[in-house]
Parts: sequence; C-alpha cells; structure tokens
Amino acid sequence: MSLTHLNERGEASMVDVTDKAVSERSARAQSLVTMSPAAFAQLVAGQNKKGDVLATARIAGIQAAKKTADLIPLCHPLALTKVQVDFELEPSQNSVRIASYCRLAGRTGVEMEALTAASIAALTIYDMCKAVDPAIVISETRLVEKLGGKRGHWQRGDEQSGGEQ
Amino acid sequence: MSLTHLNERGEASMVDVTDKAVSERSARAQSLVTMSPAAFAQLVAGQNKKGDVLATARIAGIQAAKKTADLIPLCHPLALTKVQVDFELEPSQNSVRIASYCRLAGRTGVEMEALTAASIAALTIYDMCKAVDPAIVISETRLVEKLGGKRGHWQRGDEQSGGEQ
Amino acid sequence: MSLTHLNERGEASMVDVTDKAVSERSARAQSLVTMSPAAFAQLVAGQNKKGDVLATARIAGIQAAKKTADLIPLCHPLALTKVQVDFELEPSQNSVRIASYCRLAGRTGVEMEALTAASIAALTIYDMCKAVDPAIVISETRLVEKLGGKRGHWQRGDEQSGGEQ
Amino acid sequence: MSLTHLNERGEASMVDVTDKAVSERSARAQSLVTMSPAAFAQLVAGQNKKGDVLATARIAGIQAAKKTADLIPLCHPLALTKVQVDFELEPSQNSVRIASYCRLAGRTGVEMEALTAASIAALTIYDMCKAVDPAIVISETRLVEKLGGKRGHWQRGDEQSGGEQ
Amino acid sequence: MSLTHLNERGEASMVDVTDKAVSERSARAQSLVTMSPAAFAQLVAGQNKKGDVLATARIAGIQAAKKTADLIPLCHPLALTKVQVDFELEPSQNSVRIASYCRLAGRTGVEMEALTAASIAALTIYDMCKAVDPAIVISETRLVEKLGGKRGHWQRGDEQSGGEQ
Amino acid sequence: MSLTHLNERGEASMVDVTDKAVSERSARAQSLVTMSPAAFAQLVAGQNKKGDVLATARIAGIQAAKKTADLIPLCHPLALTKVQVDFELEPSQNSVRIASYCRLAGRTGVEMEALTAASIAALTIYDMCKAVDPAIVISETRLVEKLGGKRGHWQRGDEQSGGEQ
Repeated sequence: MSLTHLNERGEASMVDVTDKAVSERSARAQSLVTMSPAAFAQLVAGQNKKGDVLATARIAGIQAAKKTADLIPLCHPLALTKVQVDFELEPSQNSVRIASYCRLAGRTGVEMEALTAASIAALTIYDMCKAVDPAIVISETRLVEKLGGKRGHWQRGDEQSGGEQ
Repeated sequence: MSLTHLNERGEASMVDVTDKAVSERSARAQSLVTMSPAAFAQLVAGQNKKGDVLATARIAGIQAAKKTADLIPLCHPLALTKVQVDFELEPSQNSVRIASYCRLAGRTGVEMEALTAASIAALTIYDMCKAVDPAIVISETRLVEKLGGKRGHWQRGDEQSGGEQ
Repeated sequence: MSLTHLNERGEASMVDVTDKAVSERSARAQSLVTMSPAAFAQLVAGQNKKGDVLATARIAGIQAAKKTADLIPLCHPLALTKVQVDFELEPSQNSVRIASYCRLAGRTGVEMEALTAASIAALTIYDMCKAVDPAIVISETRLVEKLGGKRGHWQRGDEQSGGEQ
Repeated sequence: MSLTHLNERGEASMVDVTDKAVSERSARAQSLVTMSPAAFAQLVAGQNKKGDVLATARIAGIQAAKKTADLIPLCHPLALTKVQVDFELEPSQNSVRIASYCRLAGRTGVEMEALTAASIAALTIYDMCKAVDPAIVISETRLVEKLGGKRGHWQRGDEQSGGEQ
Repeated sequence: MSLTHLNERGEASMVDVTDKAVSERSARAQSLVTMSPAAFAQLVAGQNKKGDVLATARIAGIQAAKKTADLIPLCHPLALTKVQVDFELEPSQNSVRIASYCRLAGRTGVEMEALTAASIAALTIYDMCKAVDPAIVISETRLVEKLGGKRGHWQRGDEQSGGEQ
Repeated sequence: MSLTHLNERGEASMVDVTDKAVSERSARAQSLVTMSPAAFAQLVAGQNKKGDVLATARIAGIQAAKKTADLIPLCHPLALTKVQVDFELEPSQNSVRIASYCRLAGRTGVEMEALTAASIAALTIYDMCKAVDPAIVISETRLVEKLGGKRGHWQRGDEQSGGEQ
C-alpha cells in the first residue's frame, strides 16, 4: 500500500486548545452602518415598514454570536455566558454604530463571537433598510478590546492595522 | 374578553411575497479585509499556520449564503441555484477584496445572501489571520449590483449612500 | 443472502408530496401564555429585566417558523413566503395570546410552521418572565384556520377536539 | 461626533452568568396533547399512517432540547448531559402527557431545555395525527420541578400561576 | 489599483443550475453496518440499552437528508418532497443494510440527500451499539439508482467503480 | 386519572453523563473513498470542475464534527477542542483514505465526532467527483483508536468486528 501524504504544508485544522487553562475571556467588537439621510430618518423615527430595526438587529446579533462555530470553519464551539449588542446613532453621518460584547470562562477567546454578532446585526439593519437605500455600506467591522488568555489585554490603538481612517 | 392590540405600529414581520412572480434574480456584493503587511505577506505566501486562508474563507462564504434566512430574521428561505465567492489581492494596501455572487429563480431578491457570503468570508479571513494581526479591519461591505424583480437592474454608483470614502 | 424486511408495519417516513399541485396555502395558529399578576404587570409596563419581551418573542417565533422542518422530523422543508406573529394582551387573566400566520405557494400546508412559530414565541415569553414567575403555563396551542390544498378551508369550531374549554 | 445612546431602558441581552458557580442542575417539564377519540385510538393501536408517533416524538423532543439556545434568543448554549422524554397515555380524555427531563453541570438552569423538549415532542404528535384530527390542542406546557442553582429546589404547587386547572 | 485574480484555476463554487428545467428527480442509496454477533443479537432482540436502534436511526436519516446542503458545501438547498429510510437485517453477516430514497421536483438531483440519509442512519446505529462493539464497520455506502435530469436513468451495475466486492 | 406507562422497555434517551469526571478524551476514525481511475486522476491532477476536492472535503469534515450532536439523536453536545481531517491517496486502488481526529476535555468520548467528520468528508468527495463517476463507493468507515474515559485505550485490531477485510 503506497501512500502519499497530502498535508505536508499544514492544511486547515482546528487548533488544539485542549491543554489551555479555562479562564475568563471577553471581547468587544464594533461595526458601522452608514445609510442615506432618508433611510436614517426613517430608522430614527421608528417608521421602517419592516418593523423595529434595532430591536430586530439586536436579537439577530445575539443569536449569531451563538452560531459562530457553525459559521467560521476553524472556530471552536464555545459556551458563551454573556452576549450583548448595543447601538449608538451618529446623526452627523447617518450611521448606526454597533457595539458587541461577549464573555465566557473557557479555553479560547471570544473575538470571533463578538465580531460575528456585530456583523450580523449590521446585515440585519441593511436588510430592513434596503428598500429605501440599497447602497448602504457596512464598515469599520473590527475588534475593539480583548481580555483574558495568554496574551492578556489587547486594545485597539496600540498597534494599528491598515484599515479605513 | 377585553383585548388590547399591540401591533398597531407595524412590528417586525416577514414581508408577504407569495403573490410575486417567480423570476430570475441575482446579486453581487463585496467586502474588503485590510491587514498588517506581515499578516498579508503570510497569507499571500500560503504560510498561515491555520491553513489555506482563502480556500477556507471561500467555503465559509458559500455555506453562509445558504444560512442567510437563519441569520437575518426577516429574510425568506430561498433555494439558491448559484453561489460564488472570489478573492482579489490588493497588495498596495494589504487587502483582500471579496466578491460574492448569488442567483436563483424565485419570488424575492438575493442581496442578503450575497452580502452574508461576503461578510462571513471576511470574518473567516479575520479568524485565520488574527494571531498575527488582531487589528484587521473589514470595510466596504456593500451591494454592487442586483438584477431581476420589480425594480430591475440596480448598480452601485447611480445613487450614492454616505459610506466610507 | 437471506433478508428480513423490517418495515412491514409502516414505519416513519416523510409523505410523498412530489405529485401534489403547487397552490397557495396559509395557516393561522395560536397559543396562550398565562402568568402571575406580578409578571404580567412587569411585561405590560416594559420593565422586564431581560428586555422587550414581545419584540424578542416575535423575532423568535418568526425564526422558528423557518426551522420547522429541522424540528419536526416528518415535515417537508418549505419556502415560506410570509410569517407573522402578533400578540394580544388579556389583562383579565394575566395572559398574552399569540397569533401566528404563515403562507406560501407550495405542495403541502403550513400548519406546523404556524404552530411552531406560536410555540417558540410562547417559550420565549416564558424564558424572559420566569425569574418572576416560574409557574407560567402555556396552553391553547392549536390551529385556528387553514386555507388551500385538497381539503380547502378548515376553521376551528366545526369539528371540536377534546382540548381545554 | 454626537452620540445618542439607545439602550437606556435595558434592551434585550443575554444575562451574564460567567461568575456563577458550575453546579448540578436539572428540570422536569410537561405538556399535554388532547385529540379526538379516533386519532387517539389510532395512535394507541400503532396504526398512524405516518409511522410510530411516540418514537418519533421522543427523538424530536430530545433533539429539540439540544437546539434550545438556537430557538430561544436569550438562552445560553448549554452542554446538556442528560435528556429524557417520556409519555403517558390518559385514555379517559384522549390525551398523551409528555414528561421531559434535562440535567447538566453548568452555570445556569435547564428549564427552557426541558420545556422546549416537551413542546417539540407535542408538536410532533400534532404533526403525525393532524390528518385525522386538525383540531388537536396542546396545553399544560409548564415547568414541573427544578433543582440546583441559587434558588435550590422549586416544585409546581407551592406558588400557583393563573394557568388552566 | 493593481489586482491579482486568484481564481484562475477554478476554485470551489456552487454550480449554476438556475437555467435547468424543474423536473421530477429521485435517488436511492444504501449503506451497510456490520457488527459483532453480540451487538447484532442485542439489536435484533430490541434489547439495546440506549433504546430502539432502528426507529432512532430512521428518524436521524430522514432529518439528515434535510440538512444535506448544510453539510456538503457545494450542494444546493433543495425542497425534498419525499424521504424514506428502510432497514433490512442480514443475519448471516451480522449486518443491517440501510436503504434510503429521496425525491423532489427540482433543478438538480437528490443523490447527495439519499447518501447523507444513509450515512447518518449508519452512524446512528454505530452510536447506539458502540458500547457493545466499538469495532463496527460502515461500508458499501453508495448510490443505487437515480432518475430524472439530463442524464435520465442511472443504475448501479452498468458502469462499475473500484469499490469493495 | 388512569395512566399507562409506555416506556417500560427502555425507549431512546440520552445517557446521563452528569456525574462522570471531566477528562481528556480523543478519537481517530477513518473512511475510504474508492472511485474510477478517471475520477481519481482528475482529483489528483487538481482538475475537478467543482474546485479543490480535498480542501473542500477537509472543511466539510471539520464543520460536521461540530454538528454531531445535531445529527446523531442521542449524542451529547460537546465542546470540541481539536478537530483535524487528513487525506492519503492510495493510487493503487484509486482511493482516498480519510483520517479524522477529535479531542476534548469532557464527560464523554468523541468517537461519533471523529466518525461524523470522516463520513461527511467522504460524502463531500463523492459530491465533487460524482459527475465523472456516480458509482463511487465509501467503505471502511470505522473507529481506529480511542483514548480516555473509563475504558481507557482502545485500538482497532484487538477485538475484531465482522466488517470488510
């Protein structure tokens, strides 16, 4: 039986975290949804025809955090102990800023859970407002802060990536 | 039995599309993942430690398109007949541009499916590169083009929203 | 090869509806959630500590309708074209009455989708109010009306089952 | 950047249980499915045309318990270590009484898991018997007993809610 | 903006079937589960400690057929109109032969749905018998017959692959 | 109220593992996909028209391991801490051998997770190659090794089941 091993160059696998200590971990992420003045005015006035935009987006974001391991192939399934999704209106630019927060006691971090919550909340806002403005843009989806684990505290700002300004 | 109706102000519900005609519909969306030069170089060289970043993100995006109705509360379940996720490298800004395409013969459009595919592909790239650069930013998540349905052809550019510049 | 056929007595299988005509079908279902005066007062006043009870239950019900085929083993997967969940308060008995409505153009009815939406909305109300009253009861979960298909129109009342009065 | 905080009145979020102790928790719930004499006779005789009603409902209930966090928006994902669904026939009223039991070692209770198991088992019975009796009613869906956690033992009867008698 | 196209060599995508005609399609698949005499005797006698093995495997197989597009990345979501899973005992070799059947009116075939049903039914039998025999083997998982679509009727035997004999 | 207990003969339930100790557990499984020389040659040459077969199958297998409790009715939900899927080519018989590995610190074993990963990876290979060879056979799906838990180390070979040789 002549075998040829295909995986020499390190193909995709879920990293082994079995031996990591269980510790408290949390992460904050955000995303920004920018729309036309008309779409934003309708959202703020609570007159969107599909219903309450932010209440729906909040539930969608919370539910999505729990689906992260089903969506992101190499993510570990995690028993989240806290998920929160908040919104701030930025009327000067017709934007809704989404802030997500996840926490658990576990063997690996919850950055992807926080980012997934923010992303799906943003897509839900898009879905409910797209009849008025199909050109809505989702930007600034990024990690804000991370606590716990081997590397300890990380906060956006110290080390800057090349994202939008 | 005294009843008080709670839904006078039009609460969230899935829009009725039963009586819409079945027609061919398609949508293109995109997203941009911008990372540090080190993370980008590693991705391009195929040396990411978690595996082949773009192959994994492509599958994640395709799978996510099929989960759209499960993720976005008011989306209708749709029998997608085509999903594609492509990537272009933009070395000048250390970015990966994701282009998604969805198509079906159905009663409602596939914008959300295309946007969800692009968003989850972007999050998967984030996940696989975050060990090198946790500050990665996902931006420019937006609809590019849409065909079919009552409104016919829509293309980004005619009507501009207030997204990032 | 001596074979013994195990399925002579008609074991579970998903009924074949391939040859049924595609037609418009709809269904209405309901459920009743009865709680203590304290829990009901808190719900009505919008002071539940977990958040907006009915907005959350509405989204949960809509999402659940889309998961029906995943929950009920012999249900066919259906492309719902309309899902709605409404609530009526019945202060005289500290109850919330849930009314769900589903519709599609398809080969089989949507009774289970309407009943699943009502049931999961009811469970969500329970979840959000159980800290105040763990003894909440969900009752009167039943089909109210059904349109379309071979049997045409069915409405509760003509033929009475032995449920609660 | 002028911000307006939308969440002052405590919108929906998943309660933080990170700091709660891991302890053994269990819950019992029930539900009652009441049907016409003809439908009940067919179920008891094992002559339902869709297959073995109770075997199918039992599996559906067990599977549903594991999906609770996906169905109920603010439920925490839990690693259930025991799920059981039992049935008792009540011929005098043509009813099937469903009894569910869930258990785990965790940071929060399993009431919703037990209630979801009972509810989905009930809906599965409805689905399999509805061809004979569409007027079937599901009632008395409620928590029976709860052990573990800060509040310790709770049993139905001490404090009575306003449900059916 | 200098772009480098990564997908020249045809990366994974879901084949476009939008323009295919809707037609009736069906598929039969099978799988064989072979176990020790002790495990087989226990299964046949209905004395497996986890419960009724074949009733559980049948439901698992039916449910899995509906999850095919969620499991197999490039499969199209399909609205199955019939799923059936049957078992035959082959006492001479302590085997259970699983036969699955799927059908729909659609734009693409249901081979993967039939194969997924058979595979998950097989794994469920393994799960319930593994306490008695962890060495159980699943083999002969293959398509048996396929009807409909451009290629018409295909039946195992005409063209033979290199599988086991 | 006259009750008849239906569960005397031990119907299906999820085994109670609440009181088992949390310990490190791992499992290895495998599966063999055998195809025609033409399909195998195309796979090896990377010229399959649907895309990169093994990269897609690897992701599908990893994702499937995380869905095990959703697929196999009596499996406990487990927080896997490692999933790996590898492939070896066996050109002499036009076969791809799939090797899966799962690990966690938990109360029950991960055999089903490893077997599910191997099975779904096999089905994905089938899906991508079936246009060239619909007669592909999946065989030798079996547990290879298991570590941890009460029974300790188990390795295929000591005790032989009646599968293929």
